[in-house]
Amino acid sequence: MSMDIATVNALPYEDFVNILGNVVEKCPIITAAVWSGRPFANLTALETAISEFIDALPESGKEGILRCHPDLAGRDLQSGTLTRESREEQAGSGMDALNCAEASRMARLNEEYKERFGFPFVICARMNDKANILRQLSERCLNERAVERALGIEEVKKICRLRLQALVLIDAPNKL
Amino acid sequence: MSMDIATVNALPYEDFVNILGNVVEKCPIITAAVWSGRPFANLTALETAISEFIDALPESGKEGILRCHPDLAGRDLQSGTLTRESREEQAGSGMDALNCAEASRMARLNEEYKERFGFPFVICARMNDKANILRQLSERCLNERAVERALGIEEVKKICRLRLQALVLIDAPNKL
Repeated sequence: MSMDIATVNALPYEDFVNILGNVVEKCPIITAAVWSGRPFANLTALETAISEFIDALPESGKEGILRCHPDLAGRDLQSGTLTRESREEQAGSGMDALNCAEASRMARLNEEYKERFGFPFVICARMNDKANILRQLSERCLNERAVERALGIEEVKKICRLRLQALVLIDAPNKL
Repeated sequence: MSMDIATVNALPYEDFVNILGNVVEKCPIITAAVWSGRPFANLTALETAISEFIDALPESGKEGILRCHPDLAGRDLQSGTLTRESREEQAGSGMDALNCAEASRMARLNEEYKERFGFPFVICARMNDKANILRQLSERCLNERAVERALGIEEVKKICRLRLQALVLIDAPNKL
């Protein structure tokens, strides 16, 4: 299913956005913006373009990205309204199989975090298991807002990298 | 259905984004970003915050916004995959009732426009009828890219204003 970078570079913007539009959750504008920077030498160059676009946003824009993310083990998971990518990631880290005590702890900490920071707790679920997510959520609730904004954005970039790697081949084909 | 601005200002970010997230088509990040700037004195202040966020984006980001818009009378209209707002706007200007010659002219001009500029023709359908849209599309195909980017973004702001006015009361209630 993965494309090589030459194929990616040849996509019209509509296909580019259809295929890669959710590498940053619910932010197709970011994918659509970096299309202007084609051609990309390789997957890393595409990833860097996305990362630099995010870094150049004002702080409110970075908070905006975080606010486009669903809670972990939250309402969207329960009601089946997660994006496909989020659903798979949350399931992979056990967020869809919390026991009653874990689920209630998670819900309480998510609310506490959102109340404190005005954006949701974002973590790359694929790189963490259930216990680790709960521990980090509880620790990160104690941080300063600016620290959490930066940490959240770093997690957004990790999520983006893994989503990109599922769609685009890491190495150029031998021929190139 | 409309809320007064005090109600808007009191919304948690999740409700704010759920309700107002599509005032710029498929760009909930913009709505989510301006939430950081609450409270808004009135609807105009909210609209200004959105407008200023858009203006501060790099040119690639403005092109990204345009690329999140569907073609007028295009594939998404035919396949029923437009957002609710777009569907109503396109229907209101007769885009869902083109005759055969108009539909084929529209499709040809849309392709020509996208080929030339790398983003779609964007116009506030609510403020234009069918004949006017076709005329402007054909004229705007001849512009320079930077001019079209700026014109497209002005249309995005008009669409945004009308979508906001459908959701938020223009005047504060007498009591305030």
